[in-house]
Amino acid sequence: MGEKRNKGAIVLFSGGLDSTTVTYMARRQGYRPLILLSFDYGQNHSIELTLAKNIAGHLECDHRIVKIDASLFQNTALVGNKIPVPIENRTNDESSENAIPVTYVPARNILFLSHALALAESLEMEHIFIGANAVDYSGYPDCRPEFYRAFAEMARLGMKAGMEGNPVRIHTPLIHMTKAQIIQTGVELGVDYGLTSSCYQPGPEGQPCGKCDSCRYRARGFKEAGIDDPLLSRF
Amino acid sequence: MGEKRNKGAIVLFSGGLDSTTVTYMARRQGYRPLILLSFDYGQNHSIELTLAKNIAGHLECDHRIVKIDASLFQNTALVGNKIPVPIENRTNDESSENAIPVTYVPARNILFLSHALALAESLEMEHIFIGANAVDYSGYPDCRPEFYRAFAEMARLGMKAGMEGNPVRIHTPLIHMTKAQIIQTGVELGVDYGLTSSCYQPGPEGQPCGKCDSCRYRARGFKEAGIDDPLLSRF
Repeated sequence: MGEKRNKGAIVLFSGGLDSTTVTYMARRQGYRPLILLSFDYGQNHSIELTLAKNIAGHLECDHRIVKIDASLFQNTALVGNKIPVPIENRTNDESSENAIPVTYVPARNILFLSHALALAESLEMEHIFIGANAVDYSGYPDCRPEFYRAFAEMARLGMKAGMEGNPVRIHTPLIHMTKAQIIQTGVELGVDYGLTSSCYQPGPEGQPCGKCDSCRYRARGFKEAGIDDPLLSRF
Repeated sequence: MGEKRNKGAIVLFSGGLDSTTVTYMARRQGYRPLILLSFDYGQNHSIELTLAKNIAGHLECDHRIVKIDASLFQNTALVGNKIPVPIENRTNDESSENAIPVTYVPARNILFLSHALALAESLEMEHIFIGANAVDYSGYPDCRPEFYRAFAEMARLGMKAGMEGNPVRIHTPLIHMTKAQIIQTGVELGVDYGLTSSCYQPGPEGQPCGKCDSCRYRARGFKEAGIDDPLLSRF
């Protein structure tokens, strides 16, 4: 089982801290070729696509940008201009566990992974990596381990690859790691975090706002890891 | 639970026999508004989109066509010109149950449903209908009831709507019906099957080839239902 497939992997790749770390982890684990898959879904922080392409070039990986119809996404701060990105109004304590922020994008990771499934089956690839993280995160439902287990089971049942005994595997190596652990792992693997973008509302050159959830989780991760964020010294 | 949502539904709508019947069933069951969702995924039989728009206009329903990157789909007879649509080489007996034909499109229904999930959550709609059928069908894995159960569970776990106790519901009213039963149901509801298209390789005006799997299942369904297919008298 699986032997007839190649040993490559598709990495869902935003050019952010998490997905860049995952890419380096997959590379270290010997997956070849790596296809880095980014999405243009009308995100306001679309500069991440430019930064992603830059990192992919640095890694000499195949990088693909797939477009998703932006009209699908409403009621989110990350697409369109109706809802502002909240700043400095959340904590990570238990009381906020069930409050899903307005930066949640409806069914986004489901859509991203579904596109990756189609590409994986088309290219006869067996492995998909995604940098989801359920520890230092914003409370998104599509970052939880139980979701990924259910997604893999759904894919096994709904695809030819699964019926034939070669289900596409969904790898979430960061899911139980803290942001600090992710950063430490990436630094050991040689990630240049100065090239990565995390901010929900970056400036035109990718300057982080320093105030959104994503910037704050990133800053706390670097602080806990005892490492200076090289991105900050770029601006 | 669910009361805050509207009573509308999204119907995955190809303009074919099954999805048109499902649309009439959802309408009869009182779902309003109905949003008919079609996909332009590079299918060779893209004339179905024109026919779908025609039926949607006839029903005075909102019709949306969402584009999916066609480069995702390889190794299928329905996109591109590398693999021909097979003709008259399949039966529906048990020996063919595990042979998935080349008209299978990688992860297609997963992608269609994922788009519908995003739209449903964006519009605060709770219901999605899909005309999948596991009886008179071509052996596609994404037409089986166990896949739809797994998909709904995945969506419940991965979406804000599910976490808040209002999971999006996936309705598959045709799943256990024979093609003849589907046709009889549709005729009772007033479906004009002369407007619907089923063929995998129709002519420029939508003329069915009469030889592909889809045409053959359709023909057998009409025969078993004891009804003449009005589509055939159009050409």
